[in-house]
Amino acid sequence: MMNLPKYVQIKEVGPRDGLQNEKSWIDTADKIAWINMLSESGVEEIEYSSFVNPKWIPALADAREVGQKIKRNPNVSYSALVPNVKGLDFALEAGIDRASVFMSASESHNINNINKSIADTYPVLKRVIEEAKRSGKPVTGYVSTVFDCPHEGRIAPSEVLRVCEKLFEFGVDDISLGDTIGSAVPSQVEQLLETVLHHYPQEKIIMHFHDTRGMAIANIMTSMQYGINRFDSSIGGLGGCPYAPGAAGNVATNDVLYLLHGLGIHTGINEQKIQEASLFIQGKLGKALPSKSLAYLASAI
Amino acid sequence: MMNLPKYVQIKEVGPRDGLQNEKSWIDTADKIAWINMLSESGVEEIEYSSFVNPKWIPALADAREVGQKIKRNPNVSYSALVPNVKGLDFALEAGIDRASVFMSASESHNINNINKSIADTYPVLKRVIEEAKRSGKPVTGYVSTVFDCPHEGRIAPSEVLRVCEKLFEFGVDDISLGDTIGSAVPSQVEQLLETVLHHYPQEKIIMHFHDTRGMAIANIMTSMQYGINRFDSSIGGLGGCPYAPGAAGNVATNDVLYLLHGLGIHTGINEQKIQEASLFIQGKLGKALPSKSLAYLASAI
Repeated sequence: MMNLPKYVQIKEVGPRDGLQNEKSWIDTADKIAWINMLSESGVEEIEYSSFVNPKWIPALADAREVGQKIKRNPNVSYSALVPNVKGLDFALEAGIDRASVFMSASESHNINNINKSIADTYPVLKRVIEEAKRSGKPVTGYVSTVFDCPHEGRIAPSEVLRVCEKLFEFGVDDISLGDTIGSAVPSQVEQLLETVLHHYPQEKIIMHFHDTRGMAIANIMTSMQYGINRFDSSIGGLGGCPYAPGAAGNVATNDVLYLLHGLGIHTGINEQKIQEASLFIQGKLGKALPSKSLAYLASAI
Repeated sequence: MMNLPKYVQIKEVGPRDGLQNEKSWIDTADKIAWINMLSESGVEEIEYSSFVNPKWIPALADAREVGQKIKRNPNVSYSALVPNVKGLDFALEAGIDRASVFMSASESHNINNINKSIADTYPVLKRVIEEAKRSGKPVTGYVSTVFDCPHEGRIAPSEVLRVCEKLFEFGVDDISLGDTIGSAVPSQVEQLLETVLHHYPQEKIIMHFHDTRGMAIANIMTSMQYGINRFDSSIGGLGGCPYAPGAAGNVATNDVLYLLHGLGIHTGINEQKIQEASLFIQGKLGKALPSKSLAYLASAI
């Protein structure tokens, strides 16, 4: 029988990665009420917003107010995305327990997304990471397009490894490997983890899947068979794909919990509370979210 | 690395299991045009309709006309669902290459679905199977609710095995094990296959997953790790769940093909043609189908 972890840690990224890719504006008060619901679900980490310039992510322009007004649960670690030292300063002011920096494993996706080459991104992230660490905050490094890039196609595991090496050298505590366009199949997950786990212990690696083609749950299964027990997910499967406006977003926390609890894996998260928070944000967005477990529960007779 | 089959055979059940659970009536001419499209996709088997009394499945009341008028591709095996000898006679008249009989592993689901106890169902199926074999037609036995029953909960693998034993004794050529309510997680698939494959060779067993909670692709991965290389799927994820009107149906052929082809597994099916046939039936139903790969391709920019 499969060898699976007994415990899996979920980071809820709906308020950041989810909303970042939604076109609708969610009122700040609704965001706060919703994050407060998530804070009571038993989830241990919530990425509550992004301190990227609002010009680039208007949906999260209220990051400071959100950070200041959410009710902090002492059992939850609150993180936010920070692009540079200025963003980090705003985030520290608003309150974070952990900072998240980001870049791509693909040169052209990095240029498209951050407007810098990979080489030019390193010194920026180095400074942010050092300053966050000086402020006593752990740092997660997001590496995106670790399997496929919308511009370059297949990304070699060695390219991903090179970026991981730099980020760990700069001092990140862990790295979240992102299937940004939700294109990977389990054999790609195997190949990447064979490479990465040859150099770093499992507990330093988080897997971040998008469910664009419905492969995310299978990819999580494969990751767990490699001992990975930390995953990013987004409530209801919020988000979407900038390259396909009708496509699914991050893997849904609801579906991940259905899988994990069904497998007898402990998460500490209350599915009922995740369900309620999903219906809340679904109502605010005014459209059905892509999570199949959510659709099932919402319509069960 | 995982040990996976090199070739997987898909049975397209959209025209039967898919449409059976859709509320909209699809015109007979459209069904025929659509099945003709599927016949040109490279798929080797299509279940084109059901000869159950139209009172129970009004969506497929035109089974005879469909069977008579579809353009038969000599490389495709055309099957249909038959509940009894009368249904089999109609199916033989309309033209079938293979007959499918069905029952549940759960007593109460069987009573609900067929209006007979499991014990009373056996002699009916025995006669159909024998008569189909006398007419030179191979027979597939569908066993539903092999993991969980909506009335009884968890079904023991030993119960499923007992039904399989009977059906093989009556002469079925193979058995399709159905996760009718789409509730299984991979550990359940493992447990069932450990039991069933202890008694029967892999090539006699087909897995039939519904994607109600988004677990089907992971369950297919697990099945393939046990050597299973025959799956039922439904184009676009057509269908739905009688217990949850908004929930997903059969696992989508589109998503299965994305997985299999991504893993380098041969199917002989042209994804582009499946995509076109999906958009055709989606247009006739007038609603978005649940396949995530379809949603991605349909909206990619």
